[in-house]
Amino acid sequence: MENCIFCKIIKKEIPSSIVYEDDAVVGFKDINPVAPVHILIVPKTHLANVNEINEENADIIAKIHLAAKKIAKEMNIHEKGYRLINNCGPDAGQTVFHLHYHLIGGKNLGSKIL
Amino acid sequence: MENCIFCKIIKKEIPSSIVYEDDAVVGFKDINPVAPVHILIVPKTHLANVNEINEENADIIAKIHLAAKKIAKEMNIHEKGYRLINNCGPDAGQTVFHLHYHLIGGKNLGSKIL
Repeated sequence: MENCIFCKIIKKEIPSSIVYEDDAVVGFKDINPVAPVHILIVPKTHLANVNEINEENADIIAKIHLAAKKIAKEMNIHEKGYRLINNCGPDAGQTVFHLHYHLIGGKNLGSKIL
Repeated sequence: MENCIFCKIIKKEIPSSIVYEDDAVVGFKDINPVAPVHILIVPKTHLANVNEINEENADIIAKIHLAAKKIAKEMNIHEKGYRLINNCGPDAGQTVFHLHYHLIGGKNLGSKIL
């Protein structure tokens, strides 16, 4: 997608702090972190959000989660714990329409989820 | 898992408001909803959390997300939007150690994720 900021990050056309990359997925630091660890995990293929997932492409969601587990281990938060958040659409406050998961941790996040 | 409350819900040994079921996944209403729509989506196979996902079983994550999309459509929140949250481990406030995703929507959730 020509004007997608996450596509540009994936193609390294604009700078970011990439912490993880494989054939299908990139993980980079959120520029406005809400916790000591705050990584955005995105598929290299542009999909707007979970509404565009179907039987054919849903394996990317599994790959994103395998990446999340690896990143959490790398950042040494896998045992203490972490939260994964996906915002889909306007009511969820989705601002960038390239599918992304927030991986948040590095402190006690509390039990309140909204 | 003998004492897992979500395994008991899946086996209908204790009551719940099930809104979705397929071969691999069950969706039921959270008993303490934080929004007009608050569904818990769980795999029928017991896994504690995302730390137990690996190359062999990760397709369950894709199935959970395909179910989430279907439930969101069924509840008529797929266009306005919804948030998916997964808590893994103590720092995330995970209380039931059976992998589950919160599907939250039905109102504007705001852009604050923590």
